[in-house]
Formats: sequence, structure tokens, C-alpha cells
Amino acid sequence: MRSATTISKMTEWQKSVKETGRNIGFVPTMGFLHEGHLTLIQEAKKNNDCVAVSIFVNPAQFGPDEDFDAYPRNLDADIRLAAKAGADIVFCPEVDEMYPSDGGIRIVPGPLANRLCGASRPGHFDGVLKAVLKLVNIVQPDSVYFGMKDAQQLAIIETFFRDFNCPATVVRVPTVREQDGLAKSSRNVNLSISERNEAPAIYEALQQAVILFHEGLEITAVEQFVAEQIKNKTSGTIDYISMLTYPQLEEPDAMSDELILACAVQFSKARLIDNIIFKREG
Amino acid sequence: MRSATTISKMTEWQKSVKETGRNIGFVPTMGFLHEGHLTLIQEAKKNNDCVAVSIFVNPAQFGPDEDFDAYPRNLDADIRLAAKAGADIVFCPEVDEMYPSDGGIRIVPGPLANRLCGASRPGHFDGVLKAVLKLVNIVQPDSVYFGMKDAQQLAIIETFFRDFNCPATVVRVPTVREQDGLAKSSRNVNLSISERNEAPAIYEALQQAVILFHEGLEITAVEQFVAEQIKNKTSGTIDYISMLTYPQLEEPDAMSDELILACAVQFSKARLIDNIIFKREG
Repeated sequence: MRSATTISKMTEWQKSVKETGRNIGFVPTMGFLHEGHLTLIQEAKKNNDCVAVSIFVNPAQFGPDEDFDAYPRNLDADIRLAAKAGADIVFCPEVDEMYPSDGGIRIVPGPLANRLCGASRPGHFDGVLKAVLKLVNIVQPDSVYFGMKDAQQLAIIETFFRDFNCPATVVRVPTVREQDGLAKSSRNVNLSISERNEAPAIYEALQQAVILFHEGLEITAVEQFVAEQIKNKTSGTIDYISMLTYPQLEEPDAMSDELILACAVQFSKARLIDNIIFKREG
Repeated sequence: MRSATTISKMTEWQKSVKETGRNIGFVPTMGFLHEGHLTLIQEAKKNNDCVAVSIFVNPAQFGPDEDFDAYPRNLDADIRLAAKAGADIVFCPEVDEMYPSDGGIRIVPGPLANRLCGASRPGHFDGVLKAVLKLVNIVQPDSVYFGMKDAQQLAIIETFFRDFNCPATVVRVPTVREQDGLAKSSRNVNLSISERNEAPAIYEALQQAVILFHEGLEITAVEQFVAEQIKNKTSGTIDYISMLTYPQLEEPDAMSDELILACAVQFSKARLIDNIIFKREG
């Protein structure tokens, strides 16, 4: 497996792949790879001739009070893991290589960013869209792979690719979980031992809540149920619990078919998110 | 020459060109082609194997009180002219083909749009960037050609392509003028006969002003000189006259090397813009 730290080297690789008629699957990551990322890479490998993985902790998507410096990094391990999972090249640029200039143009996600994580992270999805557009312009993949854990990110990226005719297919990959149900996340290492023991209660609450919704519980009561479960069973502080249409992220009405029940919980040194995307039954 | 009205047909053409190792020059236009556009097409033909021209009056870049409906159109003539100038394909989609959905994501140009035309046309350059990104994603050109008459548009597009790693070269093409110096524009047909006779005074004033600047006249006095000339010699209303750095569009200081002197003048049924981009002498 190769690695590239410069855009020009990455462009060279991309051109050589395209010239020989092979297609590219692309997995953009912020590194500290876990099984969730490796599943994305394996999926990409199954369906493409070549796989590129980017490892770039994107400063543009962290707020001034957020954990950019504390975000876990381990490039050597990432490169080994990516190679083992089937990556053909890892693109791991420095910040200066990705952002040498800034003329002040932003991609603004609009109403899709007003809810869920967007509400408490102003500018976050501007930064995500900037990095994603830059990366797909550099890598020029046929398909890009995103995990469904970052459901709002996925909804915004799907909408952006659709509305701006980006020439790559966005592939949704289901959330990978620990044996006890906790969604895999690079941020899990920042949980204390007791927080780690409590954290599976989040997904349990979401699962039970979806059952209650299908049994007829009103949306507000469903959200309250999740809130109570998380309050009772964890030491985390709830940022939001919200049931919305997916991927539009609007208030559901009786006609809404695909829904998301999503939450964010702040622990002492880690903010965890999780969700279930499901079809309305009956 | 072919023509395509659907994105899928355009994609097919683009892929067939790329598969045979040929490159693509692209000229995005709003149609009603004049010699300015034909120069862009000829430049593209000189330097690329194949040339695509888009003809799309982009509603996203017209304000609610602007001239979208009055914007001149003549698709049959455009197709003939584009073919004659060397285009291999004309892409002329309907509005519904280009904008079937809108999830509310916008590309916002920021400070670059605060001056010149951007100041009096809020949202205009959002709409330009949306259409340009969509079109380059559809056409996937190696080079895109823009005229220097729309200097602010060019500055914003150059900055966007640079900061977002868009995989095409932006080529600047000098403004084409009538014999009397008036910049060629699709909007010139909306001038009355007397306005058409007055309009060359705009470029004359800009030329004289640049000479006065090189002779030592202060920037404010240079701008005032242009204003007086246009007021005295035309019936138009001045929207702005401004000397700025190019392509940053900031207030010049003693170190600024490349400058633009630009103006916009509103006539009864046509708003004309013109500019001179020049290096500071000495």
C-alpha cells in the first residue's frame, strides 16, 4: 500500500488508476481507525478496483471550544490497519497542504444543519462540506463511503452530492457496534471506565424507543422516554434527542416514511452520538 | 456538432471523450452568443481536443427584481454560432433538469461578494457558484473559459476553484469590444439607440482614468473622474465605480500589484459593467 501526503502525489495516483480504466472507492476519515472505518474500507474494496482512504483531522469542522487538539491520532497504526483492510493508498496531508489559502468562500448547509448536532455546533457542517468537496475533487472517486452513525453528516452530504451533481455515488454503511451495542467511535477512548460501562444504555434506549413508537407512542413521549433512560442510566448530559424524517431532517407528519431517532450525550471528555434510521411500520 | 438537453446525455458524451484520452475545454454561457463568447469557444478549441458549451439562463443568479424573463434568448442561433466557432457539443438544459431539487445548501462567496456587483446583487454570486459547480461536475472539463468582462465573477470562481481543489484550470480571456470600445454583452441589445451611442464613454473614461492613475492621481480622484465622465457623457445611473486589488477585491495599498478599475452603469433597460485589470507601473 502507498501513502501520500501531498495533493500532487494523490492526483498522480488517481490519474494512473483512471488511465487504466479502474474505478476508485474512497473512504474519508479523521483517522484513529476502528472497526467502523475498517468496515467502510472493506465495503469499498468489495465494490471497486482500488480504494483510497484519507486520514485528516479537519480543523474546519471543529468549533473554537471543541476538541481538535484532544482528538485522538495514531497515524502509524492507521496506515497498518488501512492496508490490512484493503486500502491501496492512504492520503494523510498536513493542515497546510489542505488549507494553504482561504478566500472566505463557504458551503453553507442551510436548514439541514439547524437541528441535531448542527444546532449546537455552528459552522461544523460548513467545515465538513469544505473538506469533503476538497477531498473528492482531489481523489475523484466513483463511490464515497460514509457510516450511518454520523447520520446528519450523511444526510447533508447526500443532499449536497445530489443538488450539486457531484460525480460520485454516496454509499451508506450501517453503524458498527461493540458487543454491548455501543456505537464504535474514535471518541470512545476518551470515556472514563465508569462512563464506558454506562454508555451502552444509549443504544438500548433508542432501540426500546423505536419499539414503543411502533406500538403507538407519540413522538414527544418517545423522545422523553429516551431522555429518562439516559438520565437514569448514565452520568452524561443530554445535548439532544430528536425524531425526524430522514434524510430531510424535518418534523415528521403521518406521511413520513423514513425516520431517524437520534441523540447526542456529553460525557466528561467525550461527546457521543448515536441513532436508528428506520421505516415506519404498517 | 451535437446538442444535449439532459444531464445523462452530457455525462455519456463526457465519458466517451475521456475514455479515448481526449481532453475537454468548457465554455459556460447564458446564451445569446456574441463575439465575446465565440472568442471563448475559439480559445477553448485551440487548446483542447473537444469543446463543450453550455447555454443556460441560470435563474439562481437573478434577484427577484432582476431581468430573468427579459434576458435575451435565441437558442437556434446560439447552436449555429457555437458550431461555427468550434464547439463539439452544446448543453442546453431546461431549468427543471438543472434544479429538480433543492435541499437548501448554498455556496456563499463571503467578502469577495461584498463589493462591486455583489453589493447591489445579494445572492447573485451564490447562484453563479451553484450553476458553475453543477456544470463542471456534469461536464468534467480540463479547462473552463471565462471572460474578463465579468471580473468579479472570474475572481470568485478562481478563488473557489483554488480553495476547493476543483480539478479544472480556469482560463481568463480578455474582454472583446465593439469597434468603438463598448464591451460586447448580451445586454447591449436592450440599450436604446441614444444609449448605445453614449455607452462607449464608459470604456473611454476607464482608459483615461488608468492613465491619470499612472500619472499619480489618487484612487478616490480617479474614481471621481470616471463618475464625472459617465455622468456628463451618458444618461445612465452609476451603480459603482471602484478601484480594488485583483483578484482579492480589497482596498489597494502601496504594495498592491494587480488592480482593477471597475464600474456598473444602469441604463433604462440594461445594466452595463466594464473594467480594466492592470498592473501598477514603476
